[in-house]
Amino acid sequence: MPGVDDGIRFPAPQLRAWTEQVFQRVGVSKDDAVLLTDSLIEANLRGVDTHGITRMLCTYVKRMQVGVVNPKTQLTVLREYPSTALVDGKNSIGQVVSNVAMRMALDKAKKTGVAFVATTHSNHFGAAAYWAMMALEHGMIGFSATNAPAVVAPTGGRTPMLGTNPFAVAIPAGREQPVVLDLATTVVARGRILLCAKQNKALEPGWAFDELGRPTVDPHAAVRGLLAPIGGYKGYGIALAIDLLCGVMTGSHYGTHFPGFLADNMTDPTDVGSLFAAINVQSFVDLPEFKASMDKAIGEIKTSTKAEGVKRIYIPGEIEFETKVERLKNGIPIPDAVVKDFVALGKELGLSFPMTS
Amino acid sequence: MPGVDDGIRFPAPQLRAWTEQVFQRVGVSKDDAVLLTDSLIEANLRGVDTHGITRMLCTYVKRMQVGVVNPKTQLTVLREYPSTALVDGKNSIGQVVSNVAMRMALDKAKKTGVAFVATTHSNHFGAAAYWAMMALEHGMIGFSATNAPAVVAPTGGRTPMLGTNPFAVAIPAGREQPVVLDLATTVVARGRILLCAKQNKALEPGWAFDELGRPTVDPHAAVRGLLAPIGGYKGYGIALAIDLLCGVMTGSHYGTHFPGFLADNMTDPTDVGSLFAAINVQSFVDLPEFKASMDKAIGEIKTSTKAEGVKRIYIPGEIEFETKVERLKNGIPIPDAVVKDFVALGKELGLSFPMTS
Repeated sequence: MPGVDDGIRFPAPQLRAWTEQVFQRVGVSKDDAVLLTDSLIEANLRGVDTHGITRMLCTYVKRMQVGVVNPKTQLTVLREYPSTALVDGKNSIGQVVSNVAMRMALDKAKKTGVAFVATTHSNHFGAAAYWAMMALEHGMIGFSATNAPAVVAPTGGRTPMLGTNPFAVAIPAGREQPVVLDLATTVVARGRILLCAKQNKALEPGWAFDELGRPTVDPHAAVRGLLAPIGGYKGYGIALAIDLLCGVMTGSHYGTHFPGFLADNMTDPTDVGSLFAAINVQSFVDLPEFKASMDKAIGEIKTSTKAEGVKRIYIPGEIEFETKVERLKNGIPIPDAVVKDFVALGKELGLSFPMTS
Repeated sequence: MPGVDDGIRFPAPQLRAWTEQVFQRVGVSKDDAVLLTDSLIEANLRGVDTHGITRMLCTYVKRMQVGVVNPKTQLTVLREYPSTALVDGKNSIGQVVSNVAMRMALDKAKKTGVAFVATTHSNHFGAAAYWAMMALEHGMIGFSATNAPAVVAPTGGRTPMLGTNPFAVAIPAGREQPVVLDLATTVVARGRILLCAKQNKALEPGWAFDELGRPTVDPHAAVRGLLAPIGGYKGYGIALAIDLLCGVMTGSHYGTHFPGFLADNMTDPTDVGSLFAAINVQSFVDLPEFKASMDKAIGEIKTSTKAEGVKRIYIPGEIEFETKVERLKNGIPIPDAVVKDFVALGKELGLSFPMTS
């Protein structure tokens, strides 16, 4: 997930306070605005600007303003077992629905060892890692996944039938940072293809297909074509499994029935389905022992022999933890074009950006 | 997983009966021999000969004969919660341990909605799909994963630190065949690289690294080098997460501590860790409704527009279901070299191959 390095740096607390105000101004309750803002600012801090206010704020606000997302939270638990639940988000904010679901999963896993809570009629939930990471402070392993609008064809096909369908896994450690995996099931994001097209730069083999479903390294053909799933038919299978669990099993939209869930859809409720899981480490092994083993395993990988020309071996999530330290200190970069959007949004809502007090 | 097409075809019941006898002759109980044989013959029927008797039988037998695997089953449940358990396999046959674990998961999920049962001190469990598919007849979604000896380097590294760490997901459908995903986290199997080296044929980009950890299409350099994980750092992350859950969380071997679990290790207990999960569909949605939606979703993908030159779009597991129908009718092909091995094994054990009665 590429970060943004250019643009003016704003202190995170300043962006946070303003964003909380913005959401409240379009009808979100204080508590929900705090949560929603935290999920976005946390993404920015971790360098995942694609899921921070940088890319999401104006779209989220617009979608609430036009009524495609309900800013007032309404939730129902449709079905519940000791270790599972299905939560109907009733088109509320994706982050609010996801937070309820993940907290239910954590409560249940504390008692039974593991829990899966799914959501239906939900919305874009931001970065998957945010939900999986909620498990960490409870000594649990967290998991989250969601379906998304179709951009990937099945192997051998050329109609987009599946989303990037990302998933995240967060595993606690001791001295070491937790292992946090957050990945879409495509080799590269569409943004990367668009950038290559702009620069007239050939793609690497295996990134994309053209309109006829043939592998291509021509960025312009790829823009009109399809993203390639990781590992070919393997990534297709993973994306499909996530769509079947998140979409079909929850009674949400799936495959091609899925309307856009961001700026591309200002008319229809999106009906995202997502999945949240927690595994209580304690139900398998004592937590201190687990954390010590995690540190050992992580240390072994980090100190293993490096490939030629490589300076350092990273653990999944490590770059994001380091980016957070840096951005807490130096601020979150907001590109000029986005600053302009924020200023305009502030004017519209009577909340000047940046806030001066 | 490449199948074998050459060799004499033997009827599955004949191979099954002989294999059951072979295992009993080296100390496996009748029930365990039936189960173990079924897991292997089922892999052959599905065309996954790498996990059938074709590749496994002589190795499994040898490992029991030299005492690296205990043919007599001994199991303990080390820890148990309503939705989880940790089973100590005490170096028993991997399939026997896995069967107990998956059955526990199914029982627990029936009551609580979802269950995760992990195993430690286990052995090679055959094809991952076999365990996930046990969930299907119960109207459940099955999952299995295992760690394995290191053949993959972390991104930026050049020491093998992680196994192919395969996982399987099986999701029931109605009229359509269930969706069955079973995949290793490497782009191709090592066997494919070896074949290219034999034929002096260049690899496709992205399949492998050389000894110094640099991408290579030279099959000979790749043989001395490393397999590439699917999606680069993404596959590395998935393989790592599976190793941490299956290995570290269960107190089993992990990373480089993992000795070989097949013909390459005839001296040390392998201490495989595996994970088995079941999700009771009914705890989210009524099963008939789920099955109808699954059929619809599968049908939409199968009938979506095909890429140029493609005859058919497959659902994960579909080729294996069709291969099973064909091989049940025409028999399982056993290559000449393997027939020779079986004849020799039969002689050694006083059980002629093929059995004539």
